[in-house]
Amino acid sequence: MSKVYLVGVGPGDPELLTLKAARIIAQADIVAFPQKPDEQSLALKIAQAHVSVHSDKLPIEMPMQVDRKAGEEAYDRGAAQIAEFVNAGKTLVYLCEGDPLFYGSAMYFLDRLPENIDVEIVPGITSMTAAAAATKRPLAARSDRLKVLPATLDAQTLRVELNSSEAVAIIKVGRHLPKLRKIMAETDHENSAIIVEYATHETRERISRLSEYQPETAPYFSILLTYGGDEAWGTQ
Amino acid sequence: MSKVYLVGVGPGDPELLTLKAARIIAQADIVAFPQKPDEQSLALKIAQAHVSVHSDKLPIEMPMQVDRKAGEEAYDRGAAQIAEFVNAGKTLVYLCEGDPLFYGSAMYFLDRLPENIDVEIVPGITSMTAAAAATKRPLAARSDRLKVLPATLDAQTLRVELNSSEAVAIIKVGRHLPKLRKIMAETDHENSAIIVEYATHETRERISRLSEYQPETAPYFSILLTYGGDEAWGTQ
Repeated sequence: MSKVYLVGVGPGDPELLTLKAARIIAQADIVAFPQKPDEQSLALKIAQAHVSVHSDKLPIEMPMQVDRKAGEEAYDRGAAQIAEFVNAGKTLVYLCEGDPLFYGSAMYFLDRLPENIDVEIVPGITSMTAAAAATKRPLAARSDRLKVLPATLDAQTLRVELNSSEAVAIIKVGRHLPKLRKIMAETDHENSAIIVEYATHETRERISRLSEYQPETAPYFSILLTYGGDEAWGTQ
Repeated sequence: MSKVYLVGVGPGDPELLTLKAARIIAQADIVAFPQKPDEQSLALKIAQAHVSVHSDKLPIEMPMQVDRKAGEEAYDRGAAQIAEFVNAGKTLVYLCEGDPLFYGSAMYFLDRLPENIDVEIVPGITSMTAAAAATKRPLAARSDRLKVLPATLDAQTLRVELNSSEAVAIIKVGRHLPKLRKIMAETDHENSAIIVEYATHETRERISRLSEYQPETAPYFSILLTYGGDEAWGTQ
């Protein structure tokens, strides 16, 4: 039956695909994926081993810059392409890095597809849980508040949230690192903060205490984790 | 080589295991899992298809009630059992529902294992992302703050957090539903809130708008999701 699957392929390690994702990708008529100019598609690279030689590939062109208008146009075009294949009776899989609905772009296609189209979403491992696994420290437990905060938020909002959290994951660190360093010091998180670059990406993963991390800025695919929660945790 | 793997088996659907989890479980000398009195182990049930007939099973006894002291003792005993097998040269997998470090119990073993023991954590699909996938609505996007709030938090804390969030996941809803209904109304989230019982559990998953949900209380394995974020979302 014709259908669109928005499939999370996880943070980077191809073995962190779910069994369900692997099966659905292997059976798809069309495998679609985001494609930026002059870049290999990370989502396709992660899922590559499961893509059948009988499937057609559909790169969905994405703008290089995070420009809202260019993004909207790309989603409009992509959604139209996806709808056309599904209306022609095909099963189409759209590959998403991480999880489709956790700061992913899949929601914009979901929002644009005609209502008659059958959509299923397959959750994926997030970079956040993968980063925590790499650090071997809890993300959150019991009655901890866990806040996921994009680094793009203004300094005052970040300060307020950090001052009222047991656990924080700051995503999309990138060029915002100097601002974050300052806020971490102001809110007394400088010693607990750990930065994870490229969680589970073979050879590129790097884990450092923020206090020992030298670079001025970090890769976009970096996460800053703090944990000051459950009292039972603390001997490590 | 002897080692402990703390492995997330996902929220309930056995197909939401990762390829890595399936491989590591199949190769283990010992498969350990939490075992409450007179209950089938959910983690074992999810992973069952991958457990080799050559692996020994190790149920780790957990108290029925959420009693701190009884819990501590159970973790002490469990960690000692795990350490004994690993020190004897075995590879042991401990199965965790969802993700090991996202409100899971694995962190308590991690905290108690002797430092000489090699530990690896395999992240799993969380019930939060699985619930969002089931609702086909974003968890969070762009600069949204996403807050994960245990339902055990006091009413005032929940109110403050809900009033300063674009996206919220309230976990462990259970008997706290009446309190949550009141707070959702007070913070103007009553229309956007969706409750998901047993995300991805075959035949038990149930998705309702909170405003249309009749029961007085909900199962422990329920999540309440609100989303009022990205302006681009809203036509569905």
